[in-house]
Amino acid sequence: MRILSGMRPTGRLHIGHLSVLENWVRLQEENECFYFISDWHALTTGYDNTAELQENIRAMLLDWLGAGLDPERSTIFVQSHVKEHAELHLLFSMFTPLSWLERVPTYKDQIQQLGKEGKDVSTYGFLGYPLLMAADILIYLADAVPVGEDQLPHLEFCREVARRFNHLYKTLLFPEPQALLAKVAMVPGIDGRKMSKSYHNDIPMSASPEEVWERVRLMITDPARIHKTDPGHPEVCLVHTYHEIYNGEEVEETRVNCRGGRIGCVPCKKRLAEKINAVLEPVRERRARWAARPELVEEILAAGAAKARITAGRTMAMVREAMGV
Amino acid sequence: MRILSGMRPTGRLHIGHLSVLENWVRLQEENECFYFISDWHALTTGYDNTAELQENIRAMLLDWLGAGLDPERSTIFVQSHVKEHAELHLLFSMFTPLSWLERVPTYKDQIQQLGKEGKDVSTYGFLGYPLLMAADILIYLADAVPVGEDQLPHLEFCREVARRFNHLYKTLLFPEPQALLAKVAMVPGIDGRKMSKSYHNDIPMSASPEEVWERVRLMITDPARIHKTDPGHPEVCLVHTYHEIYNGEEVEETRVNCRGGRIGCVPCKKRLAEKINAVLEPVRERRARWAARPELVEEILAAGAAKARITAGRTMAMVREAMGV
Ligand code: SF4
Ligand code: SF4
Repeated sequence: MRILSGMRPTGRLHIGHLSVLENWVRLQEENECFYFISDWHALTTGYDNTAELQENIRAMLLDWLGAGLDPERSTIFVQSHVKEHAELHLLFSMFTPLSWLERVPTYKDQIQQLGKEGKDVSTYGFLGYPLLMAADILIYLADAVPVGEDQLPHLEFCREVARRFNHLYKTLLFPEPQALLAKVAMVPGIDGRKMSKSYHNDIPMSASPEEVWERVRLMITDPARIHKTDPGHPEVCLVHTYHEIYNGEEVEETRVNCRGGRIGCVPCKKRLAEKINAVLEPVRERRARWAARPELVEEILAAGAAKARITAGRTMAMVREAMGV
Repeated sequence: MRILSGMRPTGRLHIGHLSVLENWVRLQEENECFYFISDWHALTTGYDNTAELQENIRAMLLDWLGAGLDPERSTIFVQSHVKEHAELHLLFSMFTPLSWLERVPTYKDQIQQLGKEGKDVSTYGFLGYPLLMAADILIYLADAVPVGEDQLPHLEFCREVARRFNHLYKTLLFPEPQALLAKVAMVPGIDGRKMSKSYHNDIPMSASPEEVWERVRLMITDPARIHKTDPGHPEVCLVHTYHEIYNGEEVEETRVNCRGGRIGCVPCKKRLAEKINAVLEPVRERRARWAARPELVEEILAAGAAKARITAGRTMAMVREAMGV
């Protein structure tokens, strides 16, 4: 299968992203994968704040490589390096009813949500974002797209665009890409809210062992527990949630010991930090190897864009032919 | 000055377009001119009817060359051959408020107008058409744009986009292009309505002398005039209007003779046809020379696109730099 997915260049990723990336890494074993850094998407909400965009692209790419994305297997590139996406987006715009875009379920929600954060995104580009995403996907004639639940409406929109194109221009050029809903662990932030760099409650994928401990140390535990011998309530403790994700083998034991007042919160956290570090260790190692070779990283992007352009260019030739342009 | 203008590829032009083209020809004498065939614009209203698009592009280009546009002096190209327009349009979309586009005076009018003709243009691309036009103009850093009155709102929109870009990214990259409002003769169709190929009331720029006579012969004259000796009313006669445009030296004499019943409508029309043919003769000649060399015409388009891409590419490098993309 040909598979495509992308991420906005938000800068360094956190451990919550790791399970998404692990899924991408699994997929690259047996499929033709295109993974792209969607810098144009980032502009739809951040056109006025691009000072760190290039830095963020490189930081995120290192995290991707650290997680095990393999530039020999997957085509890894930056969206804006493949101008064909812009051309296809423009051509799609010609026959896409405004009402389709206005009706995308996330559209009005996000305008409101971002409005509350003081961001005005009632722009032409923000409205057109799902159409740009449709172009991103369809230009590679992707069969499937690993997405989260929240992205399903966008994928359905993409399928509608594919159908409309095929219908209008009497062709079977575009497949209707399927959703690959992977089971991805939801890792909460260290304060229990959604993990996010902007909340300062994240554990970066690239954190050193010391930094991991710093973050774990700050995690909220059972507030009723003062002495080590007080019986704990793991069900209200974030550390316990983390043990469930990163320490499956010992979670049962931890739970029992906590309830019985037989383990202190500090050793419980130390153990968790060890487990997280065990997961991050190979990621850190790979990341460091790539980080030491910035010229190689640039080469990956250049080669990825060149490869992506070949496929995108082929599709565009067929699109122009079908549309008579 | 750097000057830019474009036309939609509607196929063969009519003599009403000639005065627009004569203005373009004058401008190329002393300016750096970019003239483009806006095939993407044509898609905003004609995405579902592109069978004749390529043919129309060539036919219009021959009329341009016939009118005297000189590929040695002017950069003549097809919009869709310069993908940078699509990229700039996409980047502009990020910071262009939807409300600006919705407020363009022609927008709602045209939706209604075209709706009456059974055309549904409430698409994302139709809404974005002025933004595409802004990208077309600004990508060449044009100082001035020859436009008709009806295009003034679009040019004002373009200037707003330039200001917003310069303000947001703290740059002086984009000039605010000025309107060049040329005095262009309004030539009515042979039935007195607006001249248009679709009304079948036009005189093609490429018409042969016989075809010109066929069209002039059909023109509505003073309906009260039956015999040659009946006094005529030139003010209600379309032939007289045409004499005003194409036969300035003799219009006074014609008027007097008509009023005095001293000239028949047929000789009056014959004289007009002669005058129109005198204007069209050099156009026809040039056109025929180019039409005989289709491979040269393709070369003009290829060379024009290559030249346009150099300027557009330079602007895009500065745009990306300014936006941090
Ligand atoms: S012992 Fe562990 S699971 Fe129990 S409250 Fe402390 S940190 Fe939480
Ligand atoms: S003589 Fe000429 S101007 Fe007078 S009515 Fe006939 S065509 Fe018209």
